[in-house]
Amino acid sequence: MSVNRSAAALVEAPRGLAGVVVADTEIGDVRGREGFYHYRQYSAVDLARHRSFEDVWHLLVHGELPDPARSAAFAAETAALRRLPDEVAAVLPAIAVAGRASGTEAGPLAGMRSALSLLGAAQGLRPVYDIDDERRRMDTVAMSAAVPTILTALHRLGRGLDPIEPRMDLPFAANYLYMLTGSVPDERRTRAIEHYLIATIDHGFNASTFTARVIASTGADVAACLVGAVGALSGPLHGGAPSRALDTLDAIGTPDRIDPWIRERVLAGDRIMGFGHAVYRTEDPRSRMLREIAQGFGGPRVAFAVEVERQVEAILADLKPGRELHTNVEFYAGVVMERCGLPREMFTPTFAAARVIGWSANVLEQARDSKIIRPAARYVGPGAPVAVPVTG
Amino acid sequence: MSVNRSAAALVEAPRGLAGVVVADTEIGDVRGREGFYHYRQYSAVDLARHRSFEDVWHLLVHGELPDPARSAAFAAETAALRRLPDEVAAVLPAIAVAGRASGTEAGPLAGMRSALSLLGAAQGLRPVYDIDDERRRMDTVAMSAAVPTILTALHRLGRGLDPIEPRMDLPFAANYLYMLTGSVPDERRTRAIEHYLIATIDHGFNASTFTARVIASTGADVAACLVGAVGALSGPLHGGAPSRALDTLDAIGTPDRIDPWIRERVLAGDRIMGFGHAVYRTEDPRSRMLREIAQGFGGPRVAFAVEVERQVEAILADLKPGRELHTNVEFYAGVVMERCGLPREMFTPTFAAARVIGWSANVLEQARDSKIIRPAARYVGPGAPVAVPVTG
Repeated sequence: MSVNRSAAALVEAPRGLAGVVVADTEIGDVRGREGFYHYRQYSAVDLARHRSFEDVWHLLVHGELPDPARSAAFAAETAALRRLPDEVAAVLPAIAVAGRASGTEAGPLAGMRSALSLLGAAQGLRPVYDIDDERRRMDTVAMSAAVPTILTALHRLGRGLDPIEPRMDLPFAANYLYMLTGSVPDERRTRAIEHYLIATIDHGFNASTFTARVIASTGADVAACLVGAVGALSGPLHGGAPSRALDTLDAIGTPDRIDPWIRERVLAGDRIMGFGHAVYRTEDPRSRMLREIAQGFGGPRVAFAVEVERQVEAILADLKPGRELHTNVEFYAGVVMERCGLPREMFTPTFAAARVIGWSANVLEQARDSKIIRPAARYVGPGAPVAVPVTG
Repeated sequence: MSVNRSAAALVEAPRGLAGVVVADTEIGDVRGREGFYHYRQYSAVDLARHRSFEDVWHLLVHGELPDPARSAAFAAETAALRRLPDEVAAVLPAIAVAGRASGTEAGPLAGMRSALSLLGAAQGLRPVYDIDDERRRMDTVAMSAAVPTILTALHRLGRGLDPIEPRMDLPFAANYLYMLTGSVPDERRTRAIEHYLIATIDHGFNASTFTARVIASTGADVAACLVGAVGALSGPLHGGAPSRALDTLDAIGTPDRIDPWIRERVLAGDRIMGFGHAVYRTEDPRSRMLREIAQGFGGPRVAFAVEVERQVEAILADLKPGRELHTNVEFYAGVVMERCGLPREMFTPTFAAARVIGWSANVLEQARDSKIIRPAARYVGPGAPVAVPVTG
């Protein structure tokens, strides 16, 4: 412990440390007023449009986009790490049973948490402060590469189906859908999910990313950091649950019910899932990209979603003029994932399969610092000491 | 996500957030200049001397010491929660195998992390923001009560021994030693370990406690919070590794080597494990209590430890006059645990078995707040956007 906790040195801070800078980062940023976010020096949306998931993964953890030769090598390297060690695969049925027992929305994330923890132990990951940057990077890549295998196996086991072994010849997104369903997905669905995955890798400094960095700052191993981040992601205040936006569409039901349903909620002051973001004061660039992808698919569900968006914005302009409120990433992410055949309970796990890359980049960056992240608390209870009442 | 991340609102903060107040707490405090720390309004050392582990556990999570009837009821309640659900017990051998594969010091904590994660899923823990305070408290008690069972089972399985079922008729500390060794410990050893466990439950705001609170602030379930905290505890910068102080005693070897060994280290600027604390500017009250317990046992090992302490302080007064440097909790904790028959690899897990109560109290306190803990980062990389190079 290396922090001065004498009362005199305490610093007041905004509640929840809002706006308090805890790290300098080269990973990326979100510019809320511009409706723009980036990984390293590149627009995240442009990366989604033009590069593979593996290339962007490389950008995040190696700091640069790969050239074609390096791209192929990294894709092969990560594909080879998809298969789980036998001792971890053997435990997945028990983890799936435990997750089914829970019956909560956090079930798949709790399973991911347990399996990643076990994988880290099985691979003998060492504290990040005891290893060099290259070894740390390999640890993050090994963990991240295994996440789709873990998630799809747990999903299938929970439904009484056998897990499907990963295929090394498929790219990340295609292999993910393949392990989930057992068939190789068509190109359009694959690219749609790949867009979503790339756009989800990182997004500024959120609570799960911060958790990963706090744990990394103690020097703990990569698995400890990622497992903690999964835990934070499972919290309802974190966000990242695209299934909730679909629940809104389902609750509205039909186009004629949009107007009364939304007006009632807005007038009651309720939050409308899929709308609003703490940072973006204009359209969420992820939402724009995903709307286009959804519209490319077409169909009544997409048309209904677009109509809901249109009417919500119109009603808000009417009832709350001047307030910028747009669809957030969850809204069209749910529509796209549903259209690609992902079951609703896999929406947040799919988010996690991408975000683990962002957490990894943050762990790597934090591990290069040697300062533990450790703020203070202020005691506000009764004065001490009071004599301990001694009982027989 | 509920934080204003516009660049204009960023606040500079000390590195690692040192001294930045992130929470008001009624759990306890450390007063470094006085050499005093307390749980609620009671001296922690006085609690260790006069009350049972279960009573202090009750103080932490219920906010008050129990009267005799309540004390007996809480002891029975927690004892009944020691046994693991079958589906968790069935997976422990696989977790133990994974831990053995690792061969790292973090092995037992990685095992605890995996098993607690699985236990939380198996018990279907729900997000703390979706349940009331009483349900949250029950979740923390269920998890904490199972920790000694998990730790001792993993330890024995790792050595090819069968786990020993918990006994409900033994108090916490006695049952812990019983599950580890298979025999009911004598009263003196039991009380020595109970003193240590009570004194270790909480100690101000440390990195694992902070991790638990960050995860709790997202509303995640109790297991997610505790699993993250275990990860942070496993980091080398966290502290809480009493085995390192014993390693120092072993490295010195014999009384005649104390003076040259210590002088060489001090002159080289090396840290001497078991000495020094970031907060205490005078004797660590935990160290004082544990020294007395060690001296109660007596024997050459204890005499050697006392002599090392005496000479280190004398040499420091000689070479670094004015610098307050005393034994920290790790120094005599290692001596006492060794004397009580705990194997060295169980020292940090034993610490964790107590600290999980402190984490629990912090999770409960944080869950009553509705504000996510989420500081900011500042982007310091190259200007964006740069056009994405498109490859074939």
